[in-house]
Amino acid sequence: MQFNALVNGHTVIMDAPERVGGEDHGPIPKPFVLTALSGCTGMDVVALLRKQGIQLRDLNLKVSGEISKQTPIEYVSAHIIYEMSGEPEHEQAAKEAVMNSQEKICGVSHMLKKIMPVTWQIVYNGNEVFNNEPQAMALQRA
Amino acid sequence: MQFNALVNGHTVIMDAPERVGGEDHGPIPKPFVLTALSGCTGMDVVALLRKQGIQLRDLNLKVSGEISKQTPIEYVSAHIIYEMSGEPEHEQAAKEAVMNSQEKICGVSHMLKKIMPVTWQIVYNGNEVFNNEPQAMALQRA
Repeated sequence: MQFNALVNGHTVIMDAPERVGGEDHGPIPKPFVLTALSGCTGMDVVALLRKQGIQLRDLNLKVSGEISKQTPIEYVSAHIIYEMSGEPEHEQAAKEAVMNSQEKICGVSHMLKKIMPVTWQIVYNGNEVFNNEPQAMALQRA
Repeated sequence: MQFNALVNGHTVIMDAPERVGGEDHGPIPKPFVLTALSGCTGMDVVALLRKQGIQLRDLNLKVSGEISKQTPIEYVSAHIIYEMSGEPEHEQAAKEAVMNSQEKICGVSHMLKKIMPVTWQIVYNGNEVFNNEPQAMALQRA
């Protein structure tokens, strides 16, 4: 079940878990959709802040996707938590970079939003400064 | 610009090329959408054939995506070439496995088809046995 994917010059291994006949040598394929989403928006944020001479101390993205109950198993919603830490005076710029990526630049997010709700939450130095996830969905995800 | 993504227990590195401020330590994020697509349908095919006791000699998937001309840069179509080799009597089963994956099982393909044309082509022992890509698109991709 192992597939070695060549992705712009780099090899990425995918495999299935043992219970479905694989050997777990790599991630299963479907979550790569969310990996693409996190990488796309994460790099946007770094690049946008870099243009302003701002470097965060830390940027950690957690992406979760809700999957459908029937076959074909597909994502029906996605939520991204941006955990950022840096100088207090850079909070506004950091928040704006995320909003810019989500609303204008990130192609993966733009694609996925055509087929499912994509929501996000910004935590800066431990404080939530933005969250557009409807409460009902947050409860479901918890 | 490097991001280390933890994807169901496995670390996957993403990076940007040098011309946009990265160090090219891993693939850029967006093509992971196509990686997910290839892995999803590739594993379907292997699993479906395995259930019938059939093992191919070789299965190679080539996925290409056409991107939009404006920001946000997103995929606007995708095409998959399944290059398979195996016993001549397994050709029909191999073709059916691909059709089953594409039309019923593969969640990533099902998601993407909601927003763009996803077409595919089956080459078995060097002979094209299926292709649903419109000729105009094939010419554009060539």
